[in-house]
Amino acid sequence: MARVSQEHLDARRRQILDGAAVCFARNGFHATSMQDVLKEVDLSAGAVYRYFSGKEELIAAVVGEVLDSVRAAFEEASHQSPPPPPDDLLTLVMGRTLAARANLTVDGEPAFPRLVIQVWGETLRNKELAVVLHGGYAGVRQAWTRIVEGYQDAGMMRADVPSDHVARTMIAVAVGFLAQQSLFGPAPVEVLRDGLRALMSMPDPRTGTGGSQLG
Amino acid sequence: MARVSQEHLDARRRQILDGAAVCFARNGFHATSMQDVLKEVDLSAGAVYRYFSGKEELIAAVVGEVLDSVRAAFEEASHQSPPPPPDDLLTLVMGRTLAARANLTVDGEPAFPRLVIQVWGETLRNKELAVVLHGGYAGVRQAWTRIVEGYQDAGMMRADVPSDHVARTMIAVAVGFLAQQSLFGPAPVEVLRDGLRALMSMPDPRTGTGGSQLG
Repeated sequence: MARVSQEHLDARRRQILDGAAVCFARNGFHATSMQDVLKEVDLSAGAVYRYFSGKEELIAAVVGEVLDSVRAAFEEASHQSPPPPPDDLLTLVMGRTLAARANLTVDGEPAFPRLVIQVWGETLRNKELAVVLHGGYAGVRQAWTRIVEGYQDAGMMRADVPSDHVARTMIAVAVGFLAQQSLFGPAPVEVLRDGLRALMSMPDPRTGTGGSQLG
Repeated sequence: MARVSQEHLDARRRQILDGAAVCFARNGFHATSMQDVLKEVDLSAGAVYRYFSGKEELIAAVVGEVLDSVRAAFEEASHQSPPPPPDDLLTLVMGRTLAARANLTVDGEPAFPRLVIQVWGETLRNKELAVVLHGGYAGVRQAWTRIVEGYQDAGMMRADVPSDHVARTMIAVAVGFLAQQSLFGPAPVEVLRDGLRALMSMPDPRTGTGGSQLG
């Protein structure tokens, strides 16, 4: 048997993961079969099963890979003192995450936002996927908590707010933005950057004069 | 035939919508039949079809009702001068929206966040629902755009950022927060309020000293 380079193995693995991601984004997990994935990547069953034991493992790999790369990017930022401000940081990481998957499309539209929606829906039915997603998100949340603590330590953000609450809010912004894209179509990450900058320009509720009565 | 009061008709309609929402949140739209809804609300087919012609109309009514109430709340706020600040406003409207549906549960958990996820996933397959959701979101987005313009007119927010970008960011926060709840479990809206307050306490990127190099 011919020796196969690590580079070739990695490229093949990448090809399978990308093909599976497109299938999942198009039809969801439930309606996607391993046959669909084989057809999409144009490989034999033997070639694919060499890398992944089946659909469940593929799902976990596709989701885990995205969350790992996002977590790693935020963890790296958390080690900077102070970390980059949230408008720049979220735009940078989301921009990279979307750009790395820009070649994956469904009906000419980016597949990634659809994949996010499909994954979220599937976790309501698929306990194993819920565990993968829960673990991945917990990592991102922890990294963001450290970033927020970095802001607070540097005096860039009020310190009387639980850092985990800010972390959850930042993740909510990112996830909600992706969800919108599946409905309204692609939007540049600068939309979010502008929105965060605008919030950062508002008066601090502790000291500002912007408060008014709620109806 | 006995005359039926409007109050009775409204209560019956409410009962059907709530039962359908629970069914949809539990199993999604595709896997829910009208039989499931009849069983959930414990009414005859005749009683239910008097109000709704079928599943499609029920889906549109459930989704439309939520978006209408959210849009109305933000529209009301947009008429105040200046509008309530975003930390208070989003918390108030989300809190009311969740509280009004707190009696709807699936396996003891709030049904509403699950419903949001199911609706989003379904729009990828169901063009009619996508139209309903798109229209409803466009209304909320427009109301938020006016609120942001109110902040900008009052000098509470930098005016050099497109108001629609801020509107999209605010909606992203709300939607992403609901999505998280379906995975991490219920969280009080104060989490979001704290997160927004913390962002508002940060230095304005135009004038602040918080900028740092991105890796």
